[in-house]
Amino acid sequence: MKTNILITTIGRRGTLTNLFKEELNKLGGRVIVTDNSPLAPALYQADNHYLTPRVDDDNYVDRILEICQKEEIKVIIPLLESSFPILDKVRDVFEENGIILLLSNQDIITKCKDKYQLYKYFKEHNIPTPQSYLSEEITSSLSFPMFIKPRTGQGSQNTYKINNNQELDFFVKYIDSPIIQEYIAGTEYTIDTLSGLKGNLISAVPRKRIEVRAGEVSKAVTLKEERLINWAKNITEGLGIIGPANIQAIITPEDEIKFIEINPRFGGGVPLSYQAGVNYPLLITKMAKGQKLKPIIGQFQEGLAMLRYDTPLFMELSVLSSQK
Amino acid sequence: MKTNILITTIGRRGTLTNLFKEELNKLGGRVIVTDNSPLAPALYQADNHYLTPRVDDDNYVDRILEICQKEEIKVIIPLLESSFPILDKVRDVFEENGIILLLSNQDIITKCKDKYQLYKYFKEHNIPTPQSYLSEEITSSLSFPMFIKPRTGQGSQNTYKINNNQELDFFVKYIDSPIIQEYIAGTEYTIDTLSGLKGNLISAVPRKRIEVRAGEVSKAVTLKEERLINWAKNITEGLGIIGPANIQAIITPEDEIKFIEINPRFGGGVPLSYQAGVNYPLLITKMAKGQKLKPIIGQFQEGLAMLRYDTPLFMELSVLSSQK
Repeated sequence: MKTNILITTIGRRGTLTNLFKEELNKLGGRVIVTDNSPLAPALYQADNHYLTPRVDDDNYVDRILEICQKEEIKVIIPLLESSFPILDKVRDVFEENGIILLLSNQDIITKCKDKYQLYKYFKEHNIPTPQSYLSEEITSSLSFPMFIKPRTGQGSQNTYKINNNQELDFFVKYIDSPIIQEYIAGTEYTIDTLSGLKGNLISAVPRKRIEVRAGEVSKAVTLKEERLINWAKNITEGLGIIGPANIQAIITPEDEIKFIEINPRFGGGVPLSYQAGVNYPLLITKMAKGQKLKPIIGQFQEGLAMLRYDTPLFMELSVLSSQK
Repeated sequence: MKTNILITTIGRRGTLTNLFKEELNKLGGRVIVTDNSPLAPALYQADNHYLTPRVDDDNYVDRILEICQKEEIKVIIPLLESSFPILDKVRDVFEENGIILLLSNQDIITKCKDKYQLYKYFKEHNIPTPQSYLSEEITSSLSFPMFIKPRTGQGSQNTYKINNNQELDFFVKYIDSPIIQEYIAGTEYTIDTLSGLKGNLISAVPRKRIEVRAGEVSKAVTLKEERLINWAKNITEGLGIIGPANIQAIITPEDEIKFIEINPRFGGGVPLSYQAGVNYPLLITKMAKGQKLKPIIGQFQEGLAMLRYDTPLFMELSVLSSQK
């Protein structure tokens, strides 16, 4: 049985598309991708692609189901956070059609989206994390610098370092629903994880972030940091994460680990974990076939660096506007 | 005579490197690139690459000269704005060594870097531009929204839309040396220009910016907008720009053109102008050989779109740290 995989809201994730195409094709499967815009460059790198309405459109789910049937899709992997609750709601419908929605459940989606809920969860479970406050919780004087960001939101938009009370007063009003966090200096790490359908951790690859552009990792290097790998197992299995996730942490100059964020989706650096030896398309194909997966936690090439640069895709406007 | 070209501070400009390599190789020439970091991915796509000190290091110019001699360089194309004054100062030394520094002169570099000086220049020469103010010039009440950004600075970092007096009061202190500008709604255009060594315009390709990520164009489409092409000739020849530049403008819903910025260097969208028919490496090779160039203004493929996605380059850390 061949396994075709649908990746939704593909956007610029051309490298992710390519690696799925290459590996699935070896197994007789195909990768199909969707986006609401014909300007999403990664559309043109899959085995087939479809335009859809926006994820908040009433017809979105029907369109996805229609594509799944036409392309005999076995697994859906969504990338856009705002689509997660919408797809989670119809998880049963997908299941009835023999399709796995490779996405954590609604409780996890909500916790990961709301940085304050996640902070509370970290605290309750003794997972080290920076002190965080809602604006109404700030009573005594804080020790600056602090860090302020929206309570929800994908990427690093609207995040500011704040250095004094004047900046604090301004930004708590300027940012919609902010969370104020102890500013942690140190080196940023991301752990790419993959969990099975029962929430068991299969793979965890920590990478050190060397440079960040526009909230997406630009340069990174894989590292076998045992503490991060152990925490990744503890965190993902504690939460019950299903499928891909990325966990963000900082290691301070005093060698303390602080966890910042969890995104229950493929992170931008996943091509590095793949290159270092984690064959996501193969592992997910095995999941879809109901095969038991042996965890490969900590099994990857250490010291592999990824440098990224922009590649252009040229197309005539007339071709772009004829996409369906 | 083969023409070898050196592009300095190459960073992530892998596509630019590739197109120079491909075209120069056809002519028997080579492209050599430099950066101060072995993590600059485009280093590894040139015919040869060298690490240098930072541009503000005392040994920077000597290192560049040493590379030029070793690689028989005929033309230097710098990309980083902070390196322009440093290289301009030793333009004579390059000339004595038979090397062309393909860069506008210091007066133009200064005008383009300082958005307020450029505003004054636009006003004096009746070039349409948004009303702009230094913080000390704001006397009466402004009509919001306005736009605030640093007076100098590459890219779109630290730029904010301001909606009221409270935000204005805050950001004029928060931003170092700000300039406050009338907020112009509309569609953004960039015109990639190439001028000869005497300041004569050779090529001008307007492109409509469809999406911007982190201040760099991500999607764009070429358009034969005659007014922009005519203005590009007027502006570049009026200023006396030499070599590459990109001019940024907005066309309002009322079809008015407003010029915002000039960068006297290759813009991020140059691969699109190349793909649309402007063979920069060939044109620059001809300049270096002292051949007369026939302008090809307005001669390019219209309606060609460029979509960009990130491509990873994987390298072992040990290889990266052994670069020289």
